[in-house]
Amino acid sequence: MTDSPDGTIADLGEFGLIDRLSLGTGSAKQVILGPGDDTAIVAAPDGKVVITTDLMVEGRHFRRDWSTPIDVGRKAAAASLADVAAMGAVPTALVVGLAAPGDLPVAWAVACTAGLAQEAALVGAVIVGGDVASADVVILSVTAIGDLQGRAPVLRSGAKVGDQVAIAGRIGWAAAGLALLTRGFRSPKVLVDAHRYPEPLYAAGPAAAKAKATSMIDVSDGMVADARHLAIASSVVIEIDTSTWVIAEPLQAAASAYNVDPREWMLTGGDDHAFLATFPAKTKLPKNFTAIGVVSAVGDAGAGVMVDGVWSAAVGGHVHYL
Amino acid sequence: MTDSPDGTIADLGEFGLIDRLSLGTGSAKQVILGPGDDTAIVAAPDGKVVITTDLMVEGRHFRRDWSTPIDVGRKAAAASLADVAAMGAVPTALVVGLAAPGDLPVAWAVACTAGLAQEAALVGAVIVGGDVASADVVILSVTAIGDLQGRAPVLRSGAKVGDQVAIAGRIGWAAAGLALLTRGFRSPKVLVDAHRYPEPLYAAGPAAAKAKATSMIDVSDGMVADARHLAIASSVVIEIDTSTWVIAEPLQAAASAYNVDPREWMLTGGDDHAFLATFPAKTKLPKNFTAIGVVSAVGDAGAGVMVDGVWSAAVGGHVHYL
Repeated sequence: MTDSPDGTIADLGEFGLIDRLSLGTGSAKQVILGPGDDTAIVAAPDGKVVITTDLMVEGRHFRRDWSTPIDVGRKAAAASLADVAAMGAVPTALVVGLAAPGDLPVAWAVACTAGLAQEAALVGAVIVGGDVASADVVILSVTAIGDLQGRAPVLRSGAKVGDQVAIAGRIGWAAAGLALLTRGFRSPKVLVDAHRYPEPLYAAGPAAAKAKATSMIDVSDGMVADARHLAIASSVVIEIDTSTWVIAEPLQAAASAYNVDPREWMLTGGDDHAFLATFPAKTKLPKNFTAIGVVSAVGDAGAGVMVDGVWSAAVGGHVHYL
Repeated sequence: MTDSPDGTIADLGEFGLIDRLSLGTGSAKQVILGPGDDTAIVAAPDGKVVITTDLMVEGRHFRRDWSTPIDVGRKAAAASLADVAAMGAVPTALVVGLAAPGDLPVAWAVACTAGLAQEAALVGAVIVGGDVASADVVILSVTAIGDLQGRAPVLRSGAKVGDQVAIAGRIGWAAAGLALLTRGFRSPKVLVDAHRYPEPLYAAGPAAAKAKATSMIDVSDGMVADARHLAIASSVVIEIDTSTWVIAEPLQAAASAYNVDPREWMLTGGDDHAFLATFPAKTKLPKNFTAIGVVSAVGDAGAGVMVDGVWSAAVGGHVHYL
């Protein structure tokens, strides 16, 4: 037993925990059958579904002393929801796996599920099922499905020479927040909160699709790393020009306190889940997108990314197993 | 570095590992877009999808010294595929999360993915995406989606008084195999193999739907525990009669060696992923289904399960967090 009024998940047992977590699940018009049977059933009016899965592991992607359970739930959901939006689709449903130590307070698991549901609700999606198991640390697996609503998906492979490169959403904030937390700071709050949970501009994904974006990617590994994914998939060079960037004030302040270049966080930081996309040169960029570069032809050096005219070799971003 | 010719997953790095595991992914006519973009895209010709997710944790659901990586992959896939089949649907695609220690040999991860793909191939499904992360033990999350092919789903809630209760597939074999392995034995091989990977009769799920089964469940928690799920969802009593059961020879032999009643394994053992279903009294049972009882009306004691005329209070099966 713990001090938690609800006790631990070991006290509750597997079936009791599933019952409690079911409170976080929801109904919506696209849900034909919700939780409680062998599977859920979700409408796919377009005759197809987009599907993606992400893992989030305590100690690697979040720390329970840095983030609230609601933060952790929001962050785990956002990773998959942003992937769906980056195809130009609208998320419809999530299924969630929660592996956790037996001494995890029930209240933590319930709040985490609430965070997942809260993030999903931002895009009209709901949790329709899940599984629980015991493990030494908290591990969340989130699978999202979504609906293209009749649109063609925006792939990584469609960037064309001459296209504009544009981005929607904050970049570098989560990386700056992590740098602050790692050094023992808890402020500026806006930056540490950006590490705790991203705030993707989900609507920018479908909006880019409607504006005939030629390619798009969810920036989860870092802008340069993910631009390279686009460049390689499209067999082009992506040229990023940082000279016109407006550096957000909190990033400037934190960077000058640490005597670093804030552009490093912006170029290599993942976890903000911005949307990086390419559009034909004459397209008026949709709301929230800012131009950051152009697509040029592959030369002898092959596909890749140039930043301010220099080849970028850095992989950047969050690479595990190093 | 290890002795493994391929090294460890830490040697390979996240992106290298994803590339290697992509070899286990496949294409099929229902796959509109395979792995490599922000999401996959899978056909849902029925205008809806069934979806389910399962976690499998090393040390809880499998041990690397008892099971090959192919066994582990097969078992992880089977849990989700059987859930899809238990709705009367046909699985179309899997997405997989693999969390594992950095010193896991690449060859283990690749073989595990091959096991997942091999099991999926039994029903025409393919792996279309995944994620990897580091963790202290191997954890697999498998999400399956499937197609009802125009049929109504078979829910847990449709059992009617007077229905036959029937089961398709082995029961108790995995529990017997686990009992043997726990006691240090590796034979009879057919039983320990049943623990290592189930062999669900997947086709029995859609066949039951076509035969107008009134309710159905994948037996993963144990026959009695899962019969209770059906009974409660349907507000009925399920009466199981073991007197006519034919006990399979390997179960008889193992049970007599341990001086236990093999019916215990059959009533409470999960992990075989048999299909428990109810059918109208006059329905000719589809192939592979055997009658094991009848559905009767709820009395003062409420919904539940009776075995040989005695109320069964045992939850049975695999309950974590105890």
